[in-house]
Amino acid sequence: MMFRIFFLFAFLLSITSHVSAIDFCVADVKAAQNPSGYPCKPPATVTVDDFVFSNFVPGKNNIFNFSFNPANVDNFPAINGLGLSFARFDIEEGGVVPMHTHADATEVIVALQGNLTAGFISSDSNTVFIKTISDGNILVIPKGLLHFVLNVGKGKGSANVIFTSVKPSVQLFNLALFGNNLESAIVEKTTFLDHAQVQKLKAQFKGTG
Amino acid sequence: MMFRIFFLFAFLLSITSHVSAIDFCVADVKAAQNPSGYPCKPPATVTVDDFVFSNFVPGKNNIFNFSFNPANVDNFPAINGLGLSFARFDIEEGGVVPMHTHADATEVIVALQGNLTAGFISSDSNTVFIKTISDGNILVIPKGLLHFVLNVGKGKGSANVIFTSVKPSVQLFNLALFGNNLESAIVEKTTFLDHAQVQKLKAQFKGTG
Amino acid sequence: MMFRIFFLFAFLLSITSHVSAIDFCVADVKAAQNPSGYPCKPPATVTVDDFVFSNFVPGKNNIFNFSFNPANVDNFPAINGLGLSFARFDIEEGGVVPMHTHADATEVIVALQGNLTAGFISSDSNTVFIKTISDGNILVIPKGLLHFVLNVGKGKGSANVIFTSVKPSVQLFNLALFGNNLESAIVEKTTFLDHAQVQKLKAQFKGTG
Amino acid sequence: MMFRIFFLFAFLLSITSHVSAIDFCVADVKAAQNPSGYPCKPPATVTVDDFVFSNFVPGKNNIFNFSFNPANVDNFPAINGLGLSFARFDIEEGGVVPMHTHADATEVIVALQGNLTAGFISSDSNTVFIKTISDGNILVIPKGLLHFVLNVGKGKGSANVIFTSVKPSVQLFNLALFGNNLESAIVEKTTFLDHAQVQKLKAQFKGTG
Amino acid sequence: MMFRIFFLFAFLLSITSHVSAIDFCVADVKAAQNPSGYPCKPPATVTVDDFVFSNFVPGKNNIFNFSFNPANVDNFPAINGLGLSFARFDIEEGGVVPMHTHADATEVIVALQGNLTAGFISSDSNTVFIKTISDGNILVIPKGLLHFVLNVGKGKGSANVIFTSVKPSVQLFNLALFGNNLESAIVEKTTFLDHAQVQKLKAQFKGTG
Amino acid sequence: MMFRIFFLFAFLLSITSHVSAIDFCVADVKAAQNPSGYPCKPPATVTVDDFVFSNFVPGKNNIFNFSFNPANVDNFPAINGLGLSFARFDIEEGGVVPMHTHADATEVIVALQGNLTAGFISSDSNTVFIKTISDGNILVIPKGLLHFVLNVGKGKGSANVIFTSVKPSVQLFNLALFGNNLESAIVEKTTFLDHAQVQKLKAQFKGTG
Repeated sequence: MMFRIFFLFAFLLSITSHVSAIDFCVADVKAAQNPSGYPCKPPATVTVDDFVFSNFVPGKNNIFNFSFNPANVDNFPAINGLGLSFARFDIEEGGVVPMHTHADATEVIVALQGNLTAGFISSDSNTVFIKTISDGNILVIPKGLLHFVLNVGKGKGSANVIFTSVKPSVQLFNLALFGNNLESAIVEKTTFLDHAQVQKLKAQFKGTG
Repeated sequence: MMFRIFFLFAFLLSITSHVSAIDFCVADVKAAQNPSGYPCKPPATVTVDDFVFSNFVPGKNNIFNFSFNPANVDNFPAINGLGLSFARFDIEEGGVVPMHTHADATEVIVALQGNLTAGFISSDSNTVFIKTISDGNILVIPKGLLHFVLNVGKGKGSANVIFTSVKPSVQLFNLALFGNNLESAIVEKTTFLDHAQVQKLKAQFKGTG
Repeated sequence: MMFRIFFLFAFLLSITSHVSAIDFCVADVKAAQNPSGYPCKPPATVTVDDFVFSNFVPGKNNIFNFSFNPANVDNFPAINGLGLSFARFDIEEGGVVPMHTHADATEVIVALQGNLTAGFISSDSNTVFIKTISDGNILVIPKGLLHFVLNVGKGKGSANVIFTSVKPSVQLFNLALFGNNLESAIVEKTTFLDHAQVQKLKAQFKGTG
Repeated sequence: MMFRIFFLFAFLLSITSHVSAIDFCVADVKAAQNPSGYPCKPPATVTVDDFVFSNFVPGKNNIFNFSFNPANVDNFPAINGLGLSFARFDIEEGGVVPMHTHADATEVIVALQGNLTAGFISSDSNTVFIKTISDGNILVIPKGLLHFVLNVGKGKGSANVIFTSVKPSVQLFNLALFGNNLESAIVEKTTFLDHAQVQKLKAQFKGTG
Repeated sequence: MMFRIFFLFAFLLSITSHVSAIDFCVADVKAAQNPSGYPCKPPATVTVDDFVFSNFVPGKNNIFNFSFNPANVDNFPAINGLGLSFARFDIEEGGVVPMHTHADATEVIVALQGNLTAGFISSDSNTVFIKTISDGNILVIPKGLLHFVLNVGKGKGSANVIFTSVKPSVQLFNLALFGNNLESAIVEKTTFLDHAQVQKLKAQFKGTG
Repeated sequence: MMFRIFFLFAFLLSITSHVSAIDFCVADVKAAQNPSGYPCKPPATVTVDDFVFSNFVPGKNNIFNFSFNPANVDNFPAINGLGLSFARFDIEEGGVVPMHTHADATEVIVALQGNLTAGFISSDSNTVFIKTISDGNILVIPKGLLHFVLNVGKGKGSANVIFTSVKPSVQLFNLALFGNNLESAIVEKTTFLDHAQVQKLKAQFKGTG
């Protein structure tokens, strides 16, 4: 039988290969990206730890009283080319995730703890879709739309999040409009906000101009 | 020779068909969409006029002193499944296209007339990319990012626009935040805008709450 | 100002529409699927509850001492066209999720509770990738490969799962080989299992032939 | 044990479904196509014969001394959504497949019998890529490029063909230019062919104008 | 407040990164392409000028009395990965764009000036779709099909063109058949053109063989 | 006329380029892959032989009495980015291709010679789809499902195979479960196979543990 097995393995060598990545394409994050993602690490250098993200825990609280801990292609290279990534967020009682968008990523919130009121605004009729979710609920926020989350319950609110992008962008309303050098006159003209309001927020978010 | 031609056409019937849409899939816009677009009209009912959009002209001015005339899959069914659509816009002197996003559509502006200052804000560093363009310039605005256009020259400014979606969404900052029933308290908490500012804009854009 | 607002809304009507699904395509699960998914429900009939899955809780235990509760496009139509779905599983102490594959779906396990040993087998070299994960760990199982999960800790083991398919197939080794009418002779010839073993498992999994 | 099996099947019912097509999407060719293909037949009505094309044999000879027998989505509905289809062709000694293109389908020729000289012309430099192939050779013809096949050997030449489209278009030079009502003046102006040549071929291919 | 802002920016650093291209993937055209396009330039080196094409003007007239000025990924790297590109063409009175195809690119003609008669030929029935368009018209030419444009009006005819490819191929009938070393005998056999005609056009388009 | 031709070629240089791969992207298999495939070889180095696979012949018999000879992206670089590859297999009388899966590749079998009984098992209901095919039959095996082939006729059985992947994975049941160091206890627990059976097959397929 061993004789036949010898041929079996010879046969297998002829139909498989270590040259190509056929089961997975773990990112070589030091190489340049292209529109489909990062080049693959050589399969022979891949280990089980490439498939494990070990730090999916609450992050440090920020000034908004919430923490956000992402697992994206840059720190979890096994998701290269899969079109999805993850994050854990925790909001202190009364905390808020301010109005923002993710360009080209749908967000899915899997509530873990507390009571979270999440909302998004549709583009066609500016309709507000809003719901308070808790453990046992999943909420889908369609891609690219303005949305927010409020912790409206007692104690901490926690959730896992899935994004349909290996590294979603996060465009926060306040930082996009007030946290850079975009001229106040332009901000006012394109948002209909008052000059005083713009100046106040520019100061608060360290913008200039 | 005619005898051979007879066989030629018999042969051709065997390799072609009127059953399937093989060259194009013109939208049957009365049917239900699916994630890939609209079902195709029966190929036999398609004429050259399905491939022509005849009204690519300046639209009517609105209160912002600009007009916007879209050619999307609903009024130009030949673009079904192609992932692109078009618009013509014209801005009066001093006019503005206010801050907005297109979820999942990159926008390409082909300037035709006048001097247009267009800008977008990146998400990673909130950097402002801004440029004044005129006839002979094309500008790309990456998908999902906040952007705006100002007519900064003398006279009218005009452009053709290409979107990488058969019907791009348009989420205008002012209408999304102030033109619906989203509670003022939530707007304020998630945008850091002052109560008075929110009330003023709610009134202006007919919002409630 | 109201006069101008009147024009504003007239303008908006011209650039938006209730005809097309532009922000989302919630599945009409009673219609026939196509390769891109289900047709979209009319946008006007969509409510926030279409975006919420309310039953993401432990399911009922089965004979393997684990429960599996899926949130796929059939019971969570907001994920239509997104290429992802979800499940919650809970394994009793000592329980096991038997060897199986998901054709064309990568699986991502987000451990919630307990100690789970999960493994998958690569195709090119039949290498075993195996890891014990617990709360705070995410594990990626590349699409189509044989894999399994064991609860190796004290007490219950729980996890949320993300699949890169709106409704992943689940092909369990035992049911595929022994739970149908595939002739025993063929099973034996194509698997090298002994006749007695095949008979025993055919009986156990209610197969015939 | 039977008791446990009962629960096993109850469990399985909860994770599988006959509602959705999860393993395959066999075309319902009587329904309207959409950009992703045909709607799926109800899975419960699918049998093994849907996956078998039984007539992959030489077709009838036409005036070019070759036969072409396609297996595309209209007569082989199991390939719906897969982006590939098949054909068998047989060329008599000295026969030719005239100059043609397949819009958006790469063609792969698997030679079976005889000596076939196949060529395609690149678009960037109008370079001719030409090769005589026989049994044991595969040739790739990049999508959309003009190409042809000649039987240059003794006896019949046969091949199987794979197209990267569920139903490739076939645009034959002669029929596209001379087999319809396109005005002779336009043909001449856009092809630089002489009037007499155009008239001769219009007559031969039953064109008018 | 500044103290809180300090934390705000620390927080933002944790959710954003300069490592990955998340908003855009501007082509590094000196690197090797892959099937999804060019690798991305490092985001930190990107400026607003990468998003602007400044030379979208009439090109130089050629022997056909028209000019063609492309804006493709090689001279407009911001369109990398977007699947579209642009061109400006201008045809002198009486001029013609000869019969040609674009493999795998749909073409959209936005007429700017003059009267242009454009036509394409479907593959299934060799039907001619022909229309005279002028300023205010858009025409779609399905991918891969033979088409042409004639300036049938007084004075110059101009148009902008959009292609659904970052760099469309252009296969001109005359150059593909007569502008290379493809043997005359093969041209004749595969096109049914007369020997004298082929010789004449070979001479005209500098072909050999 | 030559003068005009001179301009013609100058014109063509302006619309074409040797910089970009526009007609094809032949793999540079020495470079690192990315999720879309291999980088393209410089177009100037491509010849017709890159499009030809010359060794599509029966391979050497293995212990299963069949040979398998693949034409995938590693030995046939012209198929880079096309999502398909090929193989020839030949089975001796009475031979078998054992139970296996191809993760994310549909398989299409084009029977050439003999009588082959091929079967696959659906995942939703564990239904066996089984058919005996011969020359003139094509069989589709949906992606990711367990399947097998038996030569049930007199003499050799041969087929060409098309896979919807440039290099399909092959996961053979026996080697995945018994040909590695996966602990016997885990194999038994996750497959319900008896200890003695697992030990026997581990010995046969050179597994350890």
